[in-house]
Amino acid sequence: MDEGQPVKYGYMVINEGKIEGIYEEEVKEEAGEVIDAKGKLIIPGFVNTHGHTGSTLLRGAGDDLPLNTWLKEVMWPMEQRFTKETTKAATSLAIGEMLKSGTTTFLDMYHLHMDQTAELILESGMNGVLCRGMIGLCSKEEQAEKLKESVELYKTWHNSGDGKIKVMLAPHAPYTCPPDFMEMIIEKAHEHGIALHTHLSETRKEVEEHIGTYGKHPAEHLSELGFFEGHALIAHGVHLSDVELSLLARKGTYISHNPKSNLKLGSGVADVKKMKEKNIRVCLGTDSSASNNTLDMFEEMRFASLIHKGVNEDPTAVSARDILFMAAQNGGKALQYEKKGRLKKGYDADFSIVEPGGMHTLPDPEERIVSHLVYAHKGSDVTDVFANGKQLVKNKELLTMDEEKIRFNAREALAKLRR
Amino acid sequence: MDEGQPVKYGYMVINEGKIEGIYEEEVKEEAGEVIDAKGKLIIPGFVNTHGHTGSTLLRGAGDDLPLNTWLKEVMWPMEQRFTKETTKAATSLAIGEMLKSGTTTFLDMYHLHMDQTAELILESGMNGVLCRGMIGLCSKEEQAEKLKESVELYKTWHNSGDGKIKVMLAPHAPYTCPPDFMEMIIEKAHEHGIALHTHLSETRKEVEEHIGTYGKHPAEHLSELGFFEGHALIAHGVHLSDVELSLLARKGTYISHNPKSNLKLGSGVADVKKMKEKNIRVCLGTDSSASNNTLDMFEEMRFASLIHKGVNEDPTAVSARDILFMAAQNGGKALQYEKKGRLKKGYDADFSIVEPGGMHTLPDPEERIVSHLVYAHKGSDVTDVFANGKQLVKNKELLTMDEEKIRFNAREALAKLRR
Repeated sequence: MDEGQPVKYGYMVINEGKIEGIYEEEVKEEAGEVIDAKGKLIIPGFVNTHGHTGSTLLRGAGDDLPLNTWLKEVMWPMEQRFTKETTKAATSLAIGEMLKSGTTTFLDMYHLHMDQTAELILESGMNGVLCRGMIGLCSKEEQAEKLKESVELYKTWHNSGDGKIKVMLAPHAPYTCPPDFMEMIIEKAHEHGIALHTHLSETRKEVEEHIGTYGKHPAEHLSELGFFEGHALIAHGVHLSDVELSLLARKGTYISHNPKSNLKLGSGVADVKKMKEKNIRVCLGTDSSASNNTLDMFEEMRFASLIHKGVNEDPTAVSARDILFMAAQNGGKALQYEKKGRLKKGYDADFSIVEPGGMHTLPDPEERIVSHLVYAHKGSDVTDVFANGKQLVKNKELLTMDEEKIRFNAREALAKLRR
Repeated sequence: MDEGQPVKYGYMVINEGKIEGIYEEEVKEEAGEVIDAKGKLIIPGFVNTHGHTGSTLLRGAGDDLPLNTWLKEVMWPMEQRFTKETTKAATSLAIGEMLKSGTTTFLDMYHLHMDQTAELILESGMNGVLCRGMIGLCSKEEQAEKLKESVELYKTWHNSGDGKIKVMLAPHAPYTCPPDFMEMIIEKAHEHGIALHTHLSETRKEVEEHIGTYGKHPAEHLSELGFFEGHALIAHGVHLSDVELSLLARKGTYISHNPKSNLKLGSGVADVKKMKEKNIRVCLGTDSSASNNTLDMFEEMRFASLIHKGVNEDPTAVSARDILFMAAQNGGKALQYEKKGRLKKGYDADFSIVEPGGMHTLPDPEERIVSHLVYAHKGSDVTDVFANGKQLVKNKELLTMDEEKIRFNAREALAKLRR
């Protein structure tokens, strides 16, 4: 894995949304605006590679229930009543939470009002990947309609907003998309050069059922259908066989590791130690706040850094630098942004300013900064956030969104759902 | 397990450090001071049942190393240079961090300057249990000296500060205290009615070595020596056999579950699901910030609530209410405070005020408050903290300690150590 960002004192010059340079000596050129971050940390914006912002209002609804009861009795009945207004309130809240905790890019897999989501992303100034999640348990006509909608989404939005927005094709999962539908989607992806994203091997049950039905493991099956031939990102990968892991390594597929959601839903613990040994491209995602219950990449880093040490009884299983690399640079690549996740000349100016010196991050000598970022800092230590050179959070306040309105709309939208 | 605190709207009256009553209707009696917490949450102060505040300056020193390398090359060489000033800086920082994240009571196992720690606890207004950790890998004379010092500590400090301070006898662990020394300590504990605390079965290696040397599991061995006959609290319990768990259940022993430290050091995952099934008294602890790396009970609750669901592949393994009960009420009992960890008439007025309405805790309907406390809130959402009726944190600022001085002394003490 990459050795992460160097830690140094210096000056960063931003021009037209890019990092023009990082210098040890003060830069004498005239600047439009000078941000004084003396004594603070500047870190790359996090890239949250898997989530469902439309579910944000279901945060804390039906925790601690068996998965089936949770889905059938809590999630689905609520989701059926979602309006365009509900998803707007939910997505705005999610964007607000992500921004305030230092995330500048995210992937959103959802099935409702994705055009609205695109507009919200542009308004907020973040970067976002739209995935119209397709469940294929329906008629051929409906399948075709969903796929058409997904391709339209790509044609309308991919690389819009000066490249801020990207679109991927997203069959929901092998257990909800029969092989012939999956094949249709893959064909369309290859025809247009669209990247693919899907849930894969999240639970033991779905894998066993897949083997029972098709006589093969889900990733092997997807591979036969050509899923991994183009750019592909899979979410979870908790129950992948050794053969499947080697396959994904060979194909250069990205895996979005979502440790908190996997734990909370009782799905299990992905074998990230082995993924690392096989040089698989791992990045991090929060999943939705209905199964997490936060969208804070500091929390995701903390879980990803600690559980693999514990479960493998090996404190060297993953390092703090491995985790930072997953949370930023590798996430950027997984989402097809070639210049995100690093503070380096020529990269997009997506970064956060983090306040050290909280009781929980002291003492703070220079060589412990990476450790503190992964093992001690909280999302609430982020004071300022920039994406593509534009300031989106200033002294913990959102600049491009109205926080009071987000708060009000979130409560109001939930209240309306329940009336 | 207990069903936790009821969630309600109302008024709490505090008198002479105790909760005099909780009422739904406004109280008309004249009050010395009225705290308006409208729209906020009032929760019991957390009880952190295992830690080593003297190690706080080693936060982030030598993460990701194998345990032996970490101890031999990082921890021990640094600790050997600790002065009274170093431990004062370290303990003050730990107290500040705990207070600001809503902890009002903690246990401290350490071997240096425990009288100073007692004084710092009293100055801060917190509640604390002093454990002079005894390592018995030394001469008989030194063993006797350590035990004498521990008993003196008990005689001097137990129940001082109107009961704020308690003292327990603390042999470090079965692998550092030979059976005859352990027996001497247990005898002294029973003679004076002193409670016992020790590290137990933290790593697989220590358990295997114990079985190799003595032909029995460590908890069985301690039981033969009488360890569990009085009030006893063990830390970790990661590698306890089924027979040992049943034994601890029968004896009514408390287990301080330290999930983050156990993960970070690669020790493993304690079987809390089974502990719960056996009705074992489980409470939570952070261990030291050298192996955690925070002393934030919200983080500890989050890990404790999620890892057992994931590792057992069972989302019902532990509930949010189970975790709150462990973090407060059961912790209080484990540390021999009979009236802590609940908001109830007659209980000590140890509580925190928590701000809801952050992006990460919305929407926040009444029935999701317990969920949000465990799965979404952060230590940074705590705005005010009271212990024994006295306000110690106000609007996120420490009232009884000088934060700037803590910050300065922490950095300065570390710099001195390295000169």
